[in-house]
Amino acid sequence: MEDRLYDYIDRIEELDRSMFEGFKMRMDSLTKPRGSLGRLEDLAIQVCMIRGEQDPSIENRQVFVMAGDSGVVKEGVSAYPQEVTPQMIYNFLNGGAAINAIARATGFKVNVVDVGIISDIETDDLNFHNMKIGRGTKNFREESAMTEEQAINAIIAGIDIVMRKNGEKPLDLIATGDMGIGNTTPSSAIVSAITQIPAKNVTGYGTGVDDEGFERKVRVIEESLEMHSPDPEDALDVLSKVGSFEIGAIAGAILAGGILKIPVIVDGFISQAGALIACTLKPEVVGYIIPSHQSFERGSSAVWRHLGLRPYLYLDMRLGEGTGALLMTNLIESALRVFNEMATFEGAGVSDKK
Amino acid sequence: MEDRLYDYIDRIEELDRSMFEGFKMRMDSLTKPRGSLGRLEDLAIQVCMIRGEQDPSIENRQVFVMAGDSGVVKEGVSAYPQEVTPQMIYNFLNGGAAINAIARATGFKVNVVDVGIISDIETDDLNFHNMKIGRGTKNFREESAMTEEQAINAIIAGIDIVMRKNGEKPLDLIATGDMGIGNTTPSSAIVSAITQIPAKNVTGYGTGVDDEGFERKVRVIEESLEMHSPDPEDALDVLSKVGSFEIGAIAGAILAGGILKIPVIVDGFISQAGALIACTLKPEVVGYIIPSHQSFERGSSAVWRHLGLRPYLYLDMRLGEGTGALLMTNLIESALRVFNEMATFEGAGVSDKK
Repeated sequence: MEDRLYDYIDRIEELDRSMFEGFKMRMDSLTKPRGSLGRLEDLAIQVCMIRGEQDPSIENRQVFVMAGDSGVVKEGVSAYPQEVTPQMIYNFLNGGAAINAIARATGFKVNVVDVGIISDIETDDLNFHNMKIGRGTKNFREESAMTEEQAINAIIAGIDIVMRKNGEKPLDLIATGDMGIGNTTPSSAIVSAITQIPAKNVTGYGTGVDDEGFERKVRVIEESLEMHSPDPEDALDVLSKVGSFEIGAIAGAILAGGILKIPVIVDGFISQAGALIACTLKPEVVGYIIPSHQSFERGSSAVWRHLGLRPYLYLDMRLGEGTGALLMTNLIESALRVFNEMATFEGAGVSDKK
Repeated sequence: MEDRLYDYIDRIEELDRSMFEGFKMRMDSLTKPRGSLGRLEDLAIQVCMIRGEQDPSIENRQVFVMAGDSGVVKEGVSAYPQEVTPQMIYNFLNGGAAINAIARATGFKVNVVDVGIISDIETDDLNFHNMKIGRGTKNFREESAMTEEQAINAIIAGIDIVMRKNGEKPLDLIATGDMGIGNTTPSSAIVSAITQIPAKNVTGYGTGVDDEGFERKVRVIEESLEMHSPDPEDALDVLSKVGSFEIGAIAGAILAGGILKIPVIVDGFISQAGALIACTLKPEVVGYIIPSHQSFERGSSAVWRHLGLRPYLYLDMRLGEGTGALLMTNLIESALRVFNEMATFEGAGVSDKK
């Protein structure tokens, strides 16, 4: 299995910078002061560099909501009971969740991927994908969350589902999302382990624990990191010791973006933890990531900084599911239309700078 | 004329807070942790409160690009020659500018309103509206930019054009935009005058003056404010002494949003100066404003703070035209769809917080 993962990862190439100059020259010929569209210009050029063309389609947009349960929930780190994980999956499949509403507003298709929830989902909905690695992770306060083989399998599951959907119809734009009660706890643990920032500085209130629950959550993460001492440079070590299946699968979806040369919009804190895993495994994949929003969750800004990325949206969101990622759609589409549809100074007879 | 302006302004009512509780209760019944969609929830509730209904249409979206020339350009405060103003208007009408590309991506119709450019635009395009107040403002380094009557007329022009378009087909969502070479200079002057922040702290490089041009720009603004000493609490005094026609018209479009109870998305720095004029005239209109982005222009954050608003997008844009405002479309549509299409905890059988 490990060979298969590295075979995949080896296929990821650094973004081809040789295209940059040509794209930049075109951008600067358009009827606007050079650079005046700021980061929208960077976004257009990034997407074009990933796709290797000037006018890439963004029509086939799909979000992958990776779902899993976390054993560490037994420590009382979440405000919601674990039964909510499958309940929300049915809600996704019935179109009633936030991600569904936002997907309708932004033209995304929602894939729900079970990579390790405790119960079984009974459905024949084609948007549901059973790729279960296990029935929830172990409680990492007591033992490793998963075996290293499971960690590898979780990442490969994320790669495989994106590859499969791409095989059905080539994907143009991917977004990451998550569902799993309690999964800000493994996220904060991963972030603390990899960035080496103390747990209390990258742990938040999740979906709404009280102060006591928050203190407990920080303590559980601190004690777990102390016990396991994961190697910050070994993503598989971190993921297996204090991670969760869905975070592994998110890392896989991001790597798949790198393999297939498809831009991947990364959602908030849980997805950011997945991005850390992906970028620790293969730093070059960062070029394929479009950061979306600054989450309300405390560790969010630290992760973006660690990755050398800056989010575009400041919405104080802390829901997950991919909701923040999809809100980037207008920006990406606008950036590409600007790049391809605007007149040039010469073509429109507009005088350039003095 | 002044009576006519105050008749309009008197029609603006503070947002009806009595609706808030009902909307908030509905928002909290949806299958997501309470408050977890952060500012997207606030945005949905704001739009519903403005419209006075739970599921308002946002179908008829129009941006008003107010165009004017500034006499102060003679002082060498802009990187572009003044002939660009009419050239860009033809570019707007031909669909080749950034605002056109972004309008196509976001479903907006573009209105171009001449409230005071120097030349005449020859077109029979129905999206062009001739509401000229004068042929450019005077150089406010030497004399008042316009008479108080012209200031009133500029604001009324902004109100009238929105009222007219609303009469043709009821508007659901308005955005403000601007075109006018050199108009960051009157904008910074207005911002400094009203917020009482020193000019050098709210003046930027506009579309790209060099350091020398920047120093000159700051000096021109400082000297002009010193000479005119506009009354910070008298918007008409500020606008007439150091403003410009298009900023007055933007203020008018914002006031029209308040009169007609239509949400107004305010673009970057020039539009923010218009918002300051509007809110100084009628503080209650702030409830109808949707802030969009933090402009790269230095004074942008100070204006948002002064208005008690926080932008949603951080894109380092500094183009104007309404480009940043339109990028809010996904957020507004997503917010409303979340509010109206999501399942409730009860309806979806999802367990609530412990």
